Amino acid sequence: MKKYVIVVAGGKGLRMGGDIPKQFIPIKGKPVLMRTLEAFHAYDDKIELIVVLPVEQQAYWKRLCADYGFTLPHTVADGGETRFHSVRNGLAQVKEDGLVGVHDGVRPFVSREVIAACYDAAAEQEAVVPVTDVVETIRRVEPDGQSETVPRDCYKLVQTPQVFTVGLLKQAYRQVYVPRFTDDASVVEALGHPVYLVKGNRENIKLTTPFDLRVAEVLADAE
Amino acid sequence: MKKYVIVVAGGKGLRMGGDIPKQFIPIKGKPVLMRTLEAFHAYDDKIELIVVLPVEQQAYWKRLCADYGFTLPHTVADGGETRFHSVRNGLAQVKEDGLVGVHDGVRPFVSREVIAACYDAAAEQEAVVPVTDVVETIRRVEPDGQSETVPRDCYKLVQTPQVFTVGLLKQAYRQVYVPRFTDDASVVEALGHPVYLVKGNRENIKLTTPFDLRVAEVLADAE
Repeated sequence: MKKYVIVVAGGKGLRMGGDIPKQFIPIKGKPVLMRTLEAFHAYDDKIELIVVLPVEQQAYWKRLCADYGFTLPHTVADGGETRFHSVRNGLAQVKEDGLVGVHDGVRPFVSREVIAACYDAAAEQEAVVPVTDVVETIRRVEPDGQSETVPRDCYKLVQTPQVFTVGLLKQAYRQVYVPRFTDDASVVEALGHPVYLVKGNRENIKLTTPFDLRVAEVLADAE
Repeated sequence: MKKYVIVVAGGKGLRMGGDIPKQFIPIKGKPVLMRTLEAFHAYDDKIELIVVLPVEQQAYWKRLCADYGFTLPHTVADGGETRFHSVRNGLAQVKEDGLVGVHDGVRPFVSREVIAACYDAAAEQEAVVPVTDVVETIRRVEPDGQSETVPRDCYKLVQTPQVFTVGLLKQAYRQVYVPRFTDDASVVEALGHPVYLVKGNRENIKLTTPFDLRVAEVLADAE
């Protein structure tokens, strides 16, 4: 079955002269986004790679690929106003039926086992996300500021790749955007389609803070 | 105001000949539990330290203190069947009024600012826990296995120290144990008392897996 992955790298920064976006920061000498793409290529060297990047970062990315001798074939799509719009732009590059994953560009440490589990399950279940247990106690905060402990066994933390049949995801992304679409599963659920859960890997962290980047150096060492 | 901290170090392992409990593992040459106690001593050198340890680990801990030349004065209380019972045993060592924190022995990287914020707020609010935002998307899983995305802004992850007035915590721990008492805040809430939230620090992780221990090495380096 034909496989795609849409790697969403929406981190801002270059335009405003601020910090370098996380997806371009080198971890042990290799930019995060290249590591992420390599993870999917290592899982299946036939998978079609689609990278969604803000327009103003695309020239920078092209130069980065040249500088690092990064030659994995991939399509670049334009980032949108929100993650929803970015994924929709990436989906426009998906031309055939099959399975399509959506993955955060700043999650380079997804394991090959988790990628495989997500695509394998999606062939049966049509909509799959990897999740991990909540280690901490969790509290629900009400609009009035009051809060209460909720049973953590009833909650899961959601990672990526979130994998779907191409037909289902395209149908989902034809909906009108609403702010509660925080991930692809929530967009698919709005159609009334259930989402199947598989076990993620603990190391598959989303690199968002300087602390995460320090952790990433350790994880890259262990590879 | 008199201050106490009950440091709960319940990790099993020694008795069964398994792995060494996390609280005793050295991070950059110093066992986790010693780092944790030092964090509270660094915040306030008058704070009274109470360590709750399973009975079968207490001789080991004493020897460890001798080996490492660890001389911070502290009381040792016996671990109980559950965390609830361990905290109750620790509370029995609290002899005066004031403020009492309960902290996980395997959270050595709590910042001085967070400890201070919790004790300061507890003097006013009587019941305080440090929390962090949920970075990942979060799903609620129903007993039938169905699950759905829930708005992550409405949830917080709870750390320690959880700090209370001595009177309130003692009253709370006179209740009969029920399994939904997963942390001290949930025990106090069962009295109908609200819990006040302050901002925790991201590095204040609970060391529970080999992955966490690798992260801990990085955090200890940065100190």
